[in-house]
Amino acid sequence: MSTKITGIAASDGIGIAKAYTLVDPDLSFEKTTVTDPQAEIDRLAAARKITVTELEEIKAKALENLGPKEAEVFDAHLAMVNDPDFIKQVEDEITQKSCNAETAQQDVADQFSAMLEAMTDNAYMQERAADVRDVTKRVLSHLLNRPLPNLALVKSPVVVVSHDLTPSDTAQLDRQFVKGILVDLGGRTSHSAIMSRTLEIPAVVGTENATTSIQDGQTVILDGLHGVALAEPDETELADYQQQASDFAEQKALWEKLKDEPTVSKDGQSFMLAANIGTPADLPAVLKSGAEGIGLFRSEFLYMDSDQLPSEDTQFAAYKAAVEQMDGKPVVIRTMDIGGDKDLPYMQLPKEMNPFLGYRAIRISLKRQDIFRTQLRALIRASAFGDLGIMFPMIATLEELRQAKTIFNEEKTKLVEAGVKVGETIKLGMMIEIPNAAIFADHFAKEVDFFSIGTNDLIQYTFAADRGNERVFYLYQPYHPSLLGLINHVIKAAHRHGTSVAMCGEMAGDQTAVPLLMGMGLDEFSMSATSVLKTRNLMKQLDASTLSDLAEAAINDCETSDQVKALVEKLKTSQG
Amino acid sequence: MSTKITGIAASDGIGIAKAYTLVDPDLSFEKTTVTDPQAEIDRLAAARKITVTELEEIKAKALENLGPKEAEVFDAHLAMVNDPDFIKQVEDEITQKSCNAETAQQDVADQFSAMLEAMTDNAYMQERAADVRDVTKRVLSHLLNRPLPNLALVKSPVVVVSHDLTPSDTAQLDRQFVKGILVDLGGRTSHSAIMSRTLEIPAVVGTENATTSIQDGQTVILDGLHGVALAEPDETELADYQQQASDFAEQKALWEKLKDEPTVSKDGQSFMLAANIGTPADLPAVLKSGAEGIGLFRSEFLYMDSDQLPSEDTQFAAYKAAVEQMDGKPVVIRTMDIGGDKDLPYMQLPKEMNPFLGYRAIRISLKRQDIFRTQLRALIRASAFGDLGIMFPMIATLEELRQAKTIFNEEKTKLVEAGVKVGETIKLGMMIEIPNAAIFADHFAKEVDFFSIGTNDLIQYTFAADRGNERVFYLYQPYHPSLLGLINHVIKAAHRHGTSVAMCGEMAGDQTAVPLLMGMGLDEFSMSATSVLKTRNLMKQLDASTLSDLAEAAINDCETSDQVKALVEKLKTSQG
Repeated sequence: MSTKITGIAASDGIGIAKAYTLVDPDLSFEKTTVTDPQAEIDRLAAARKITVTELEEIKAKALENLGPKEAEVFDAHLAMVNDPDFIKQVEDEITQKSCNAETAQQDVADQFSAMLEAMTDNAYMQERAADVRDVTKRVLSHLLNRPLPNLALVKSPVVVVSHDLTPSDTAQLDRQFVKGILVDLGGRTSHSAIMSRTLEIPAVVGTENATTSIQDGQTVILDGLHGVALAEPDETELADYQQQASDFAEQKALWEKLKDEPTVSKDGQSFMLAANIGTPADLPAVLKSGAEGIGLFRSEFLYMDSDQLPSEDTQFAAYKAAVEQMDGKPVVIRTMDIGGDKDLPYMQLPKEMNPFLGYRAIRISLKRQDIFRTQLRALIRASAFGDLGIMFPMIATLEELRQAKTIFNEEKTKLVEAGVKVGETIKLGMMIEIPNAAIFADHFAKEVDFFSIGTNDLIQYTFAADRGNERVFYLYQPYHPSLLGLINHVIKAAHRHGTSVAMCGEMAGDQTAVPLLMGMGLDEFSMSATSVLKTRNLMKQLDASTLSDLAEAAINDCETSDQVKALVEKLKTSQG
Repeated sequence: MSTKITGIAASDGIGIAKAYTLVDPDLSFEKTTVTDPQAEIDRLAAARKITVTELEEIKAKALENLGPKEAEVFDAHLAMVNDPDFIKQVEDEITQKSCNAETAQQDVADQFSAMLEAMTDNAYMQERAADVRDVTKRVLSHLLNRPLPNLALVKSPVVVVSHDLTPSDTAQLDRQFVKGILVDLGGRTSHSAIMSRTLEIPAVVGTENATTSIQDGQTVILDGLHGVALAEPDETELADYQQQASDFAEQKALWEKLKDEPTVSKDGQSFMLAANIGTPADLPAVLKSGAEGIGLFRSEFLYMDSDQLPSEDTQFAAYKAAVEQMDGKPVVIRTMDIGGDKDLPYMQLPKEMNPFLGYRAIRISLKRQDIFRTQLRALIRASAFGDLGIMFPMIATLEELRQAKTIFNEEKTKLVEAGVKVGETIKLGMMIEIPNAAIFADHFAKEVDFFSIGTNDLIQYTFAADRGNERVFYLYQPYHPSLLGLINHVIKAAHRHGTSVAMCGEMAGDQTAVPLLMGMGLDEFSMSATSVLKTRNLMKQLDASTLSDLAEAAINDCETSDQVKALVEKLKTSQG
């Protein structure tokens, strides 16, 4: 019988392949006395040789996917494997003590790393100690013939099964081979979930027990539509899911036809669908996604892919390229949202107890005005080349918003006075992602051109639950009646003052939330490029005139998220 | 001219004394060659002797104030100072290398601690390495005649000047000598601020630069009423503040007379004033404070002052003692609020990225029902001995509340069926401290007997700003119009359903917030015992009938906290 694993549906689609478990094997061994030391020395040389080949492959992939800086560590590892002093000591140990290769390798590595670690003031030596341990692990894995998994080494179709996926793991994923992702940790908004949607790889996250329930090499069906995986399925299950996979492919092909169509509901009401992007590298995908603009361009990449603060000209070039490539379609760029879970080593931000409640985003920008003014100047200059909106993140009070606007106006005036060409109308907006901003929306609406509701943060603060923490993930409740009421309040407050409202959180592309948000009158839905056509397709099937009643019923008559979900399902079934 | 330091007023009163700076002195030294090694050996013996005397004093104070477990570390330090192996190695080093005592002590300590630290698998040895470093620091301080500060050693009147104060620092504070507390870090709700109010020591926190602006031994005036300190004041300033200090003492004596009076406004409206407590040790202070009950009894002390989960009987005894000592006055006990910034080593809670948004309080109780049921049984049994209310912390959704109530009812039924005597009416309530609970108050109000608004957490989530983080402390805004609107919404929702509303956060005793809360119709104000009489005095001077207009104006006509504050000041001046 198959083993069923349930989790959170994180990226649509169905993948069927052998499991590739990203779990370190047991590398324990016995210390033995050998009669033929030379044989051990030879075994070790062979293990080192495979280690070198393997490290070179990983390094090449890291160089290709992550860049020269991240690949450097593997140079250090390669140097370590071939270190003649180290090799000599291990060989001497084998000869003198007649011990097996594993024991000698481990003992000498322990001595080396202890020695290096004792130099506590020297960060370089500390890193070398880590290298010694890493390399020894890899050599042992070949001595014991229990290879360490690494995504760079995947060369056939697999479903990756892992406890978690780090950014450098996902950077090494090869879409050609990875048919599905199944991880123990995380929720719909975790790094692995967002990356799998960007790469269009079906994924189920937050399973808790995938790595302990599935053996490497077992056949796995991964159903990213329903958040389920089956290990060692029987023939009926296999046939059933192969059918579902082909249905899904067919559906995607149908969606594809909506690419150049306008976004209208069944009864002719118009909405705007936009895309969220993280770097200019995402622009080609946006252009072919059918998105009508960019609702959220995160500017952090400029700060994070660098060893120092990016210059005004570097930023200007990136912003200009984005608005030009979008060819007149609106592009909303959010000012720096560093801090929280995004650190910048060269800025030496303080270590905080609760970074999500800490010194981040606009809070840094208002204190470090040098950084903020540079970014604003680059944005204002880029505004001459297309339809540009500027959005401030993490605004909590009117004082913060007014201060940000004052600084913007000062920089704009200076540029205009210096004869620099700037856009005729630069729209200014703010994120609504802090509960106080949502509650106080009537006052904020008077002072900006647009709102963009950031539901990921808004939900985590409203429920006081870190969305990356799987122990409290049950409180990530986008359909909760009071959260819906809060969003409705923001939309109505904005419209009272002629301010438009977008949403750029995960919720904007959530197929249960979309009908509710249409009913509230949300103007713009901004989401992963891969969700745009699916959402356009859903909107086309819905009668918008009935949806404000739906939203009202959800807000006023429901007590729990489950009740709201049931209400929406019922309506979708009746109209869909 | 005096140096002025400004910060946050954290505990009322004025203190004038010499500064005692809790800052480690510079212990660097030169390596020298000596001609008389024996003289160095003698110097070292003398330094060790003072070190021993000092450690014994610190240990005695720790034993008295903190208990045997916390004092143990000083036993380890004393053993280390007198370790014959260590002494011999240092003396040999002096003799063989003709180096000064400082160099020998430091070099041998470095070798010892490196050796101990190399045993990375052995936590005991790691701790010993820390001991070697600590003791060496202390010995060096006496060799160099630059003593390390320690609150246990204070024997004359001082104003303590420190970067921050840890719980073990405050436990060693002697109220007889410490006339004021001045710290760089923290806000009104930080540990050092709360402790200084409990101990009734004037305090100013969050100064950022107290330790860098004030020299040890300088005269300091600390004004905890206005959040200001003056170092090296001139005679006029000194005379002025001595007058203010005596005025304040006089005022306190007047308040004292209100101890047994009822809490009524000028126009005869009644309110209830209660106290917040952390352990049964606080009960005597509550009894003499004039409080009409306990609005918040934190039960964490039972879990934190222990090496293991407290038994049902241990808890029962503590709860029973509290309700009995309060002699019929209401006592509200909050179920376990572990997690967040309160760790329990023996529970092995997960390390979290954002503990304030993590697995804590009711979230743990509902998962670890063994712990929760034990606590509820102890509480239900204690209810037979007085007026007991039970309150659930960190409720975010109706599902959580209903599950907690179901468990309560199950345990109560079991006890009743077993013939155990229980209180006739046990009131059940919940904290309103998560934005969603406040927004959804209408639904929650139907299902509990009382609310208690926890403003410390509610404010930090509503503004997404950690109240312990001084970089974002400017967002701790209890007077913000929208926060006041949210609190007003909670009170009105509760009253629609006949549910009473208390407040147990810092805001309940805040003299600017009190008139606003009276105007909203808050039923019960629960605060530090030391604030009760001051608040009763304020309430007596206010015309309650005018205050609902005040609250409405603050909520509807103000845009910022500063505007609200000005509004309240104006009214207090006209009525006070």
